[in-house]
Amino acid sequence: MENETHTVTCSAPVNIAVIKYWGKRDEELVLPVNSSLSVTLNQDQLRTVTTVSVSRKFQKDRIWVNNREESMENPRLKRLLAEVRRLTKEQGSMSGNGTRPPSHDCHMHICSENNFPTAAGLASSAAGYACLAYTLCQLYHLQVDVSLLARQGSGSACRSVYGGFVKWEMGEREDGSDSIAVQVAPESHWLELEVLILVVSSEKKAVSSTRGMQTTVKTSPLMKYRCETVVPQRMETMERAIVERDFPSFARLTMQDSNQFHAVCLDSYPPILYLNDTSKRVMQLVTAYNKLHQEERVAYTFDAGPNAVLYCLRETMSELISLVTHYFPPTPGNERNYIRGISSEDCRTDSDFTKKLKLTFDPTPGLLQYIIRTSVGDGPRLLTQPLLGLDGLPLATTPPT
Amino acid sequence: MENETHTVTCSAPVNIAVIKYWGKRDEELVLPVNSSLSVTLNQDQLRTVTTVSVSRKFQKDRIWVNNREESMENPRLKRLLAEVRRLTKEQGSMSGNGTRPPSHDCHMHICSENNFPTAAGLASSAAGYACLAYTLCQLYHLQVDVSLLARQGSGSACRSVYGGFVKWEMGEREDGSDSIAVQVAPESHWLELEVLILVVSSEKKAVSSTRGMQTTVKTSPLMKYRCETVVPQRMETMERAIVERDFPSFARLTMQDSNQFHAVCLDSYPPILYLNDTSKRVMQLVTAYNKLHQEERVAYTFDAGPNAVLYCLRETMSELISLVTHYFPPTPGNERNYIRGISSEDCRTDSDFTKKLKLTFDPTPGLLQYIIRTSVGDGPRLLTQPLLGLDGLPLATTPPT
Repeated sequence: MENETHTVTCSAPVNIAVIKYWGKRDEELVLPVNSSLSVTLNQDQLRTVTTVSVSRKFQKDRIWVNNREESMENPRLKRLLAEVRRLTKEQGSMSGNGTRPPSHDCHMHICSENNFPTAAGLASSAAGYACLAYTLCQLYHLQVDVSLLARQGSGSACRSVYGGFVKWEMGEREDGSDSIAVQVAPESHWLELEVLILVVSSEKKAVSSTRGMQTTVKTSPLMKYRCETVVPQRMETMERAIVERDFPSFARLTMQDSNQFHAVCLDSYPPILYLNDTSKRVMQLVTAYNKLHQEERVAYTFDAGPNAVLYCLRETMSELISLVTHYFPPTPGNERNYIRGISSEDCRTDSDFTKKLKLTFDPTPGLLQYIIRTSVGDGPRLLTQPLLGLDGLPLATTPPT
Repeated sequence: MENETHTVTCSAPVNIAVIKYWGKRDEELVLPVNSSLSVTLNQDQLRTVTTVSVSRKFQKDRIWVNNREESMENPRLKRLLAEVRRLTKEQGSMSGNGTRPPSHDCHMHICSENNFPTAAGLASSAAGYACLAYTLCQLYHLQVDVSLLARQGSGSACRSVYGGFVKWEMGEREDGSDSIAVQVAPESHWLELEVLILVVSSEKKAVSSTRGMQTTVKTSPLMKYRCETVVPQRMETMERAIVERDFPSFARLTMQDSNQFHAVCLDSYPPILYLNDTSKRVMQLVTAYNKLHQEERVAYTFDAGPNAVLYCLRETMSELISLVTHYFPPTPGNERNYIRGISSEDCRTDSDFTKKLKLTFDPTPGLLQYIIRTSVGDGPRLLTQPLLGLDGLPLATTPPT
């Protein structure tokens, strides 16, 4: 019994904020300067799978991420594990389902994999830390708000512990115990909402989110006003737009908040510029498309990088895909697998329509690496297929993409 | 005497704001939502020359700009001329220098020329309207604040009626009579300050300043805070930095205010994006250079377009030029005339130095059209060489550049 290996495997989704989190009021506890709100994406297209095994046989803690062993010295990882060990000690060996939970002083092996390229800048740390926190809660039968645990790995990870539409309440308490995620509506609430991710071809990210946030909080005069005055109002408006499934309001506010997030980045000193000329063209295309229809039918949002995430209703998706592939065609030879995820019927834009958009740029191949079509999805799942063998080492798996 | 033609010719400089003007509180009177402050550039490199002739012989008002006749129906032009005619009527025929001024009910011919490409986006309307206002004041011996007149043609033009360092006080009165330009320091005050203009190769401007300002004032939540709280403080700090010739403070605030101006543009809905990837690289180069020296030695500022204006002290200029031409070399065949204006000795960057900058981009030819080296300059001048002949028609002049 003592030498048994306990293993749990779970998956968790990516989330994309529509009211942006940017800046901490407490670096150690990962407490934000404002509340935020996100959409959880479908795990069929984007998810992390994590297996954690604990055993007295293990000599030390080890972690493999996307088939590569990594250091356990990562401060975010250490913080999360320290918190889990504190909780297991505090909560003793009470077990929810009758089996004896592994002792908190065992070493653990962690193995984690994304079904999408980590380097693409698609919020992989949110899915990763949400998945690790959720898996550890399952393994140790922890009586704790999972979002609170996930938050300590990576702030935005706390929103990936639920499906659908999720807000992260900034909270007021100094210990962070009220800085948790809350589901605004489940994924079933708005089945028509769909998502198109444009992965931009680009140089590597210049400024990490962690450092960028610090610079903005310290130096941007506009940031204080955003946190104190703008975001509280926007949280309410956004929640209402989601509850009422009011797409134009949802879209407008999503774009406005993406714009304002990048505005405070630019207002920082030295300035932070995540958008590039391709992002700019995506913004112009969406703006022209909405203007032509005299209402918001598509929304863009950009995180700390040039990739665009577009939201629209299902009825708009074919036209959107045809427009995007018209202005951002693949390079010759790259047509196969250019549009990934949920399959779409073939649809071409007619040239009369594109003329009406009056865009100031021409179609240019190769500005995007690829496109992912996905939808709103559910929260973390418990899986049966582990990534670690009985020996506690990674099983032969798919090569990293 | 009655059929005499009265002709006056003047020149006026370009100015580049270091605290930005963006947004009107009164469209008709051109009253701004915040004060601004600029540096007047040397007319040897950038200036407008304007000749105005009035005569009873002329059948109608006519205007030629850069060798092309244009419509008199431009509302800004009409507003300025209406104001001049109102003043000439009001002030009667009192003459400052004893000659009888031409009657206000004569038709006028106007001819205006820049010594730089208008399309390059180098604040040509500021120089143009300042020059026209100044010329009309000379012609009619008007007793009026020239800046007040120039302002009604184009807001930023009011700062081009003085040399050196000029602030435009936003004023409080409803009639705009206290919304005027004031010289903070003459051009002789800070002779070491120099200017490098990087003219970026780019598509045409997407959003005109006039329309962009309106969008920002109407839609940006951050704009109100900028006007009410940020700019008043910055005006004081900037004036002090100039009076004390404190380059690092001047440079830091210049960059911060350029950043904030583009931040509120981005915070507008739909967003306005004037900076492009070349602008971004210029910002990164200046940031890395200052970081290496652990103090601000160069400042960038961007107006409503991708062109950069760099400020530095004379001692820094050779190194700056060599760095800029290293990262932004001309396309092959375009080397001649790539660096214009004040001549510079040849200077090369060594590769050790560029390595230390740790920039994430490589030198790329053709991102800039050309570079202009210039300095701080004086205000409008009265010239003797007219652009119009005795017949009131444009003289054969240099072809448009």
